[in-house]
Amino acid sequence: MPISSQSRSKDTAETSVAQYVLNRLYKLGIKDVFGVVGDYAFPVQDAICADQKMRWIGSCSEFNAAFSADGYARIHGMAAISTTFGVGELSAINGIAGAFAENLPVFHLVGMPSTTVQKEKRLVHHTFGNGEFNHYYTMAQSVVCASAILSPENCVAETERLITTAMRERRPVYMGFPSDLAKMPVINNAKRPLDSPASHASDPAVLEAAVAAITEVVSASKTACILPGVQLSRCGLADKATAVVDASNLPFATMLMDKSVLDETHPNYIGMYDGQLLDQEVTNFVEGCDCVLGIGCLLTDFNSGGFTAKLDNTKGIHITLNSVRVGSACYNDIRMEDVLTELAKRIPHKTVKHPKIKRLVLPTDLDLNGPITVDYLYPRWQQMLRPNDIVFAETGTSSMGLAPAQLPKGATFQNQTLYGSIGWATPASFGAALAVEAAGLGRRTILVTGEGSHQVTAQEVSQFYRFGLKPLIFVINNEGYLIDRLLSQDSETCYNNIPKWRYADLPKVLGCDDWFTARVTTCAELDEAIKTAETCDTGAYIEVVTARYEAPALSNKFHELYAGLR
Amino acid sequence: MPISSQSRSKDTAETSVAQYVLNRLYKLGIKDVFGVVGDYAFPVQDAICADQKMRWIGSCSEFNAAFSADGYARIHGMAAISTTFGVGELSAINGIAGAFAENLPVFHLVGMPSTTVQKEKRLVHHTFGNGEFNHYYTMAQSVVCASAILSPENCVAETERLITTAMRERRPVYMGFPSDLAKMPVINNAKRPLDSPASHASDPAVLEAAVAAITEVVSASKTACILPGVQLSRCGLADKATAVVDASNLPFATMLMDKSVLDETHPNYIGMYDGQLLDQEVTNFVEGCDCVLGIGCLLTDFNSGGFTAKLDNTKGIHITLNSVRVGSACYNDIRMEDVLTELAKRIPHKTVKHPKIKRLVLPTDLDLNGPITVDYLYPRWQQMLRPNDIVFAETGTSSMGLAPAQLPKGATFQNQTLYGSIGWATPASFGAALAVEAAGLGRRTILVTGEGSHQVTAQEVSQFYRFGLKPLIFVINNEGYLIDRLLSQDSETCYNNIPKWRYADLPKVLGCDDWFTARVTTCAELDEAIKTAETCDTGAYIEVVTARYEAPALSNKFHELYAGLR
Repeated sequence: MPISSQSRSKDTAETSVAQYVLNRLYKLGIKDVFGVVGDYAFPVQDAICADQKMRWIGSCSEFNAAFSADGYARIHGMAAISTTFGVGELSAINGIAGAFAENLPVFHLVGMPSTTVQKEKRLVHHTFGNGEFNHYYTMAQSVVCASAILSPENCVAETERLITTAMRERRPVYMGFPSDLAKMPVINNAKRPLDSPASHASDPAVLEAAVAAITEVVSASKTACILPGVQLSRCGLADKATAVVDASNLPFATMLMDKSVLDETHPNYIGMYDGQLLDQEVTNFVEGCDCVLGIGCLLTDFNSGGFTAKLDNTKGIHITLNSVRVGSACYNDIRMEDVLTELAKRIPHKTVKHPKIKRLVLPTDLDLNGPITVDYLYPRWQQMLRPNDIVFAETGTSSMGLAPAQLPKGATFQNQTLYGSIGWATPASFGAALAVEAAGLGRRTILVTGEGSHQVTAQEVSQFYRFGLKPLIFVINNEGYLIDRLLSQDSETCYNNIPKWRYADLPKVLGCDDWFTARVTTCAELDEAIKTAETCDTGAYIEVVTARYEAPALSNKFHELYAGLR
Repeated sequence: MPISSQSRSKDTAETSVAQYVLNRLYKLGIKDVFGVVGDYAFPVQDAICADQKMRWIGSCSEFNAAFSADGYARIHGMAAISTTFGVGELSAINGIAGAFAENLPVFHLVGMPSTTVQKEKRLVHHTFGNGEFNHYYTMAQSVVCASAILSPENCVAETERLITTAMRERRPVYMGFPSDLAKMPVINNAKRPLDSPASHASDPAVLEAAVAAITEVVSASKTACILPGVQLSRCGLADKATAVVDASNLPFATMLMDKSVLDETHPNYIGMYDGQLLDQEVTNFVEGCDCVLGIGCLLTDFNSGGFTAKLDNTKGIHITLNSVRVGSACYNDIRMEDVLTELAKRIPHKTVKHPKIKRLVLPTDLDLNGPITVDYLYPRWQQMLRPNDIVFAETGTSSMGLAPAQLPKGATFQNQTLYGSIGWATPASFGAALAVEAAGLGRRTILVTGEGSHQVTAQEVSQFYRFGLKPLIFVINNEGYLIDRLLSQDSETCYNNIPKWRYADLPKVLGCDDWFTARVTTCAELDEAIKTAETCDTGAYIEVVTARYEAPALSNKFHELYAGLR
């Protein structure tokens, strides 16, 4: 017997705290909220489900929901997730930390016990039974750039503060909703217009000085190049950076975390730079330049080939989100957008002899009926890619193998290079596919993951089908965590093994009824499966079986590097 | 081509920091460590895998690993988990918080970047790229009772402090291992024997006063009863509490979180007490007693029937882990164990007229070929249970339906009543089954879960088979989160829906090759499947399909209570 629906009190002119926040997020362009239901979050989640403009995306777990929000934000620029007190928010906190590390604004809407319950210190579920309610909020502080517990009185001002901070820092924010306050009408006590977050304007004098310093160094340089970074795509500034490339005619390389941030078919693109571990010609060129202009990139371990990069910081230029460094001089409080706009007008046009991009090449002497080797696999994937594809590559050998592939125009490569939480790619690719669909972009979403990572979050495969999405999923089955086999002291240590699954049968069990699925063990089978997947007009899920130690060159280089460090 | 194993340096007389901690945990009886490999954790995890006495249990995710450790600790008294910096520990933190709430000592061994990397603030993976390394450690503080970052110098003393605190508080502890320090030899600078954690002795005078006060109140009472709590099982004190029951002849009831903490076939057991929401005869009796003696229980929302319990605290007695309250008088710094030992000698023998336990009864007029109703389902499960069974009931309608079932002698009911993180039961039951096997106990592990919760952590089903365990798993498929349908304002709000899976086919895909699986929709099919499962000598996985709103009485009572509060 269904429980009868109770009539929902009609929204009058009064807007509730929850609805106010949703209205503001919608005006930012957020149409979907990921999450899992929970009773403390009913008021927020009721508001989401009742809102005709918004869509509730019920994830299989909050752990996965946070990664999906990360993926959505990579495409859409921002995302939202709603969880319940304690159990929900802590399940999501690893994914929120990932979004923090990777500069993705995710609005985390957390339903909390009512102010009465908190004030009376009642021993309610999802607490530690000690009458304390601030633990989880405290824990969140490390992984967000701003936070607030919302009330009718502070809602307008705090929402603006959180939005402004999230968009400036490109990091997650925490919004707590005590269940009683969430339903109360907002008291509109704002002093300034609500729909325009206060801009964070550059200081004109500092901007002028920084741009002058950059152009001077570039002018004086004999050989120069650009290292565009992932923050460009986080801030939607790729076009402005491309304008700088075009104006200066400088060549550019990208590092692993930054791959595809600018168009890889651009004539000035020379390929991937990863210290001493990838194409030596690119390395020699970049490190031989007397001026390297970094734009929103970080010289992390995996970006620098395990710190084998040899860049002279005293000669380098680095444009970050809100500052510029030229050699040893820092210029603060200026926005990347403004710096790039000025540079595109004023940077000198240079002629620098540079290497040409090398595409991966399919081997010519291959036995197509033989096992799937990396020499075939990654070039075949490169061949398959189309303009505007979105490629999610999981942390580990998958992303290292795809790194040297050249992407078609408009295609992007997504990887959680800095935070590197395995399991990220599967739900993140779902979030991205949903953002693509919500925006009517018609881009393909392609997921490439190792099976060890896939096991972490595999349930989210069911969400693609549920929401009518048609991804192309490849799961590499090589009997364990290959990257850890390569990095650990003894590759056969038992911690590198995982349970054996029948991956190709998984989508059907997860309800993806009409999907094309295949398990391929030879190059010919892989080729055939890709062709079928490309024409089937359904989701596709291909289990790619390789030998246990079949690893791309970059992974083997890291193996050697780690062995040398022991 | 396999990577060649490098020879491991033989342990000499020198014991490494990691090995020292493992030795101490082994002496406590921990033989298994759950977790997921990660490079910063290699030194700790290499030590685990190299240790002939220990077993590495590679979970599908750290999120699941923490729940498995929780389940292991419920059977074994304590557990251990090892994760890597950031991504691993934050994935596990929700499960650790659950163990904190539910009083389970879990040793969390976290592999950290080397002291050099930290000191030089290198921009390494799993960080936020800002040269800071203390965020995750800070976040853990809320969910552990003690923590330390171990070094050769502090290892001996800190390990003892953490063990002592974990065992006294029955809560998780955090042990951080910088990767360089973990491999270094311990400097043994301890002042006292290593194998005996400092005991936390009761103050004799306070103990005497408390016991005298309790016996006086019990003597003077006309009707009295006991509410034994879950902390008894957490501390292995059930026998001592039973001795108090036997000596006093007092009847006892249990609340949801405390179910089965004392033997439910004991003649003095009168059934479940949950405020006004369960058996009214039990409620009337308990609330009519002029003395209620609580032992290690908490009057939380779900224990108190949503705070409908009417107990007069001024007349009550409550024995907690380290204190006693008699009416308004508190007696601190005395151990529950000592209090119970004294009480068993001195509590007066009473004769109290009390209700008798009511077993669930199978309906006699049932159409066995009709749909599966709660009136059949829960009594049939009760009928199926054997002595010493371990029953994991997931948070939600499953646990509420099983609550009134009477368990056979030695059987225990496991539920995460306070913390209530859905998804807990599946990996927790795996952890328990493993603990049973490690201890050679020969007890059955039975999991009853709703499908919404199961989706959160379903991958861990594969671990049972991988480790040769043979659980009996029931997944109730009622098309969504039934408990949330019952508690939310509009039961058909979209957030209560979930993706449709083919549950009965899941074990095969997850590699459980020889398992008995079934999907049952009628009472007769359920009955038949149970009979087969009981004789098949393999793992068994039964999908129990019920109508969308088929809910046990207690859940419907909570529905009415929530509706009344709106």
